[in-house]
Amino acid sequence: MASTAHAFRLSASPKPSSAAAAAAPADAFLRPETLSFCSSTGGARLRRSGGACSLSVTAAGAAGLKVRASSATPVMDKSKSEAGPKAPTIVDVDLGDRSYPIYIGSGLLDQPELLQRHVHGKRVLVVTNDTVAPIYLDKVVDALTKGNPNVSVDHVILPDGEKYKDMDTLMKVFDKAIESRLDRRCTFVALGGGVIGDMCGYAAASFLRGVNFIQIPTTVMSQVDSSVGGKTGINHHLGKNLIGAFYQPQCVLIDTDTLNTLPDRELASGLAEVVKYGLIRDAEFFEWQEKNMDALIARDPSALAYAIKRSCENKAEVVSLDEKESGLRATLNLGHTFGHAIETGLGYGQWLHGEAVAAGIVMAVDMSYRLGWIDESIVTRVDKILKQAKLPTCPPETMTVEMFKSVMAVDKKVADGLLRLILLKGPLGNCVFSGDYDRKALDETLRAFVKS
Amino acid sequence: MASTAHAFRLSASPKPSSAAAAAAPADAFLRPETLSFCSSTGGARLRRSGGACSLSVTAAGAAGLKVRASSATPVMDKSKSEAGPKAPTIVDVDLGDRSYPIYIGSGLLDQPELLQRHVHGKRVLVVTNDTVAPIYLDKVVDALTKGNPNVSVDHVILPDGEKYKDMDTLMKVFDKAIESRLDRRCTFVALGGGVIGDMCGYAAASFLRGVNFIQIPTTVMSQVDSSVGGKTGINHHLGKNLIGAFYQPQCVLIDTDTLNTLPDRELASGLAEVVKYGLIRDAEFFEWQEKNMDALIARDPSALAYAIKRSCENKAEVVSLDEKESGLRATLNLGHTFGHAIETGLGYGQWLHGEAVAAGIVMAVDMSYRLGWIDESIVTRVDKILKQAKLPTCPPETMTVEMFKSVMAVDKKVADGLLRLILLKGPLGNCVFSGDYDRKALDETLRAFVKS
Repeated sequence: MASTAHAFRLSASPKPSSAAAAAAPADAFLRPETLSFCSSTGGARLRRSGGACSLSVTAAGAAGLKVRASSATPVMDKSKSEAGPKAPTIVDVDLGDRSYPIYIGSGLLDQPELLQRHVHGKRVLVVTNDTVAPIYLDKVVDALTKGNPNVSVDHVILPDGEKYKDMDTLMKVFDKAIESRLDRRCTFVALGGGVIGDMCGYAAASFLRGVNFIQIPTTVMSQVDSSVGGKTGINHHLGKNLIGAFYQPQCVLIDTDTLNTLPDRELASGLAEVVKYGLIRDAEFFEWQEKNMDALIARDPSALAYAIKRSCENKAEVVSLDEKESGLRATLNLGHTFGHAIETGLGYGQWLHGEAVAAGIVMAVDMSYRLGWIDESIVTRVDKILKQAKLPTCPPETMTVEMFKSVMAVDKKVADGLLRLILLKGPLGNCVFSGDYDRKALDETLRAFVKS
Repeated sequence: MASTAHAFRLSASPKPSSAAAAAAPADAFLRPETLSFCSSTGGARLRRSGGACSLSVTAAGAAGLKVRASSATPVMDKSKSEAGPKAPTIVDVDLGDRSYPIYIGSGLLDQPELLQRHVHGKRVLVVTNDTVAPIYLDKVVDALTKGNPNVSVDHVILPDGEKYKDMDTLMKVFDKAIESRLDRRCTFVALGGGVIGDMCGYAAASFLRGVNFIQIPTTVMSQVDSSVGGKTGINHHLGKNLIGAFYQPQCVLIDTDTLNTLPDRELASGLAEVVKYGLIRDAEFFEWQEKNMDALIARDPSALAYAIKRSCENKAEVVSLDEKESGLRATLNLGHTFGHAIETGLGYGQWLHGEAVAAGIVMAVDMSYRLGWIDESIVTRVDKILKQAKLPTCPPETMTVEMFKSVMAVDKKVADGLLRLILLKGPLGNCVFSGDYDRKALDETLRAFVKS
């Protein structure tokens, strides 16, 4: 089958952009207390438009590369400087008036001014889970309130795990927000991993039709991927992330120190997304990972900090160009269609998201090879790096072809009944998002990896 | 207490605007089947930005009056023309790339081309209720599919009533959409009154993070108000519409013939919103209503058609200027803060929305008079016209001051703890949205209308 792929080429190595605008979070709420409206004569118009915050999105997209590293200092040192807190590395997500910074660094939760500059109004709701709360909740409340007595903080602690990423648990956030009498000028703060970030973000998108929110991701998975870009939502029992919203945070604050308390399995899970960035668009980064995977697994702070920064730069660039997934953004889902089928089929939470994605990447790579789109050496290198990261390279034995097919049929990338997949094509670092592939290759891949 | 009101003046009578742009619904989904992305070189950029659909919102708002009646024919005749279907009256909601038309007229469901031009993709989900479905579902399915065999239509029938406007019922829409394997290219159609429109709209906003939808309102309430402007959502047991999204439809199709089957009480309920438009911004319309209320109650088709058109023009103008309720749009909530307290306090569905709003308008007018902001003649005229419309002019006896205060405390118009209200001020047709009023007046109004 001939491919009708359109080729869009992007630079593999995000470069600092001197023209990048400073983040200017929309503030629809700093309005005068009283507005008066009359019908008696024509004349002056309302000066503040409610839609103002979405201006210039297209202009931003068209302007191309929007990523900068605004600090020249290393992201993270092994020893803390005695001269005071380090300036964070900043990666900007450029979405016009909805732009926001990603702060990356060690000890950022000890720098209250970073967080406080993005809090709107006097009321904050921290959404976290029962694993993270005992370790970091007090620290975050301190960071929000230190030297800032006008701000009061409520919190809601959800049960930990993918299996609670559902409507019933989401309702607990709304219950708490309403019982606390929060209003539209409040700020929601997501403190935790990807599940917390997705749920808190969707709650913020929906509470009173939208309030501000901040992401404080505490896992590799959420720091390199899910906290950036505004995809929020919950699972349905028939499929992952089927209910949600595109809704951008005010900022993402990545304190790399929070990884010190992360279990090994969670650490490895996040690395699957790091590998993904290399494969779909950043060959140089993939090669760096091949040299540094052992250091990452051993939690070398400098290696982790670099991987987080480079991943955020890749994510920010893609999101700036295609916020609502018209095309390019879908490539961030390499391995995810297979992976989601594993997560849904096994029951949410049995495998971690990154574990399922790792197996999914192997399957997508296998299929790309069967289509003749990539060299065998890529198959070998992917297998090797994922094993080095202590990630699975095949789906669990209990999965069947039918389980894969039924879940993949409700994937968000299906269009008019056609399942579109992200597949590698060409040299390392190149991919396509396409429904134009030989169905036989998909069947062969499924048969090769799972029982029928 | 001195008012710090800013005066924004708008024309009372929307005039046809020859410059109004034709509706151009966003279509993020008509994309090539295959996109290819490479990292090997710089060069061409993605040509379609996902954020493109929100461009020019501010420009649209700044351009002022955006309403036109694009057909010079009367909205509705008492006798159907034998020469074929009448062209609908069209009122445009101007929101840049998210603009859409409101079609108003008799027999519009017999004109399939109207509806079909706004259907995206090949799959449609009609969301309706068990009162409306037996009367209009087949007719709507016919309109969607006539001469259009490529389109297939699923439907979900929800229980009728405000008390079902909740998360459990909303989940039935997601269940049906997912079980039917609908994808992002589908279209949701809301067929029913305000509850159905709000729920279907919020489901469309959230399903797969957003799919297209169409409003077919079948009650006066939804035709004159709730179907226009993109406010969608559900109730929480502690307050109305506290969970939702701003999400605009592709079009609103108002077939005025559907009012023939509307119960009298529902008809009267919708008229409360019609009265509201007159009071907040359109004195001329209010005066017309004073002369024509008996005709409206008697279901005179011409009178109803005019009231619907003029209401939609007012709503469209306000929404175009302030989509996300930075200020001006809040004035559409005259009487609603009191009214929502009645609906929530009594239990959803005991009083119809418009009944509660009518009593709420009387309370807001009473408070405005106590503040010395309006002449007594307005109080008298409001009382008279609402009685003529067979609407309540005081809250139910079971309501207490405490019930009002506890529900009003979670109103969406509270900001930093301050309850802002829409109050009349000045000659007929003028209002303010303000938290800057003497608290004593609010207490006096509550004590005057309800037991303590």
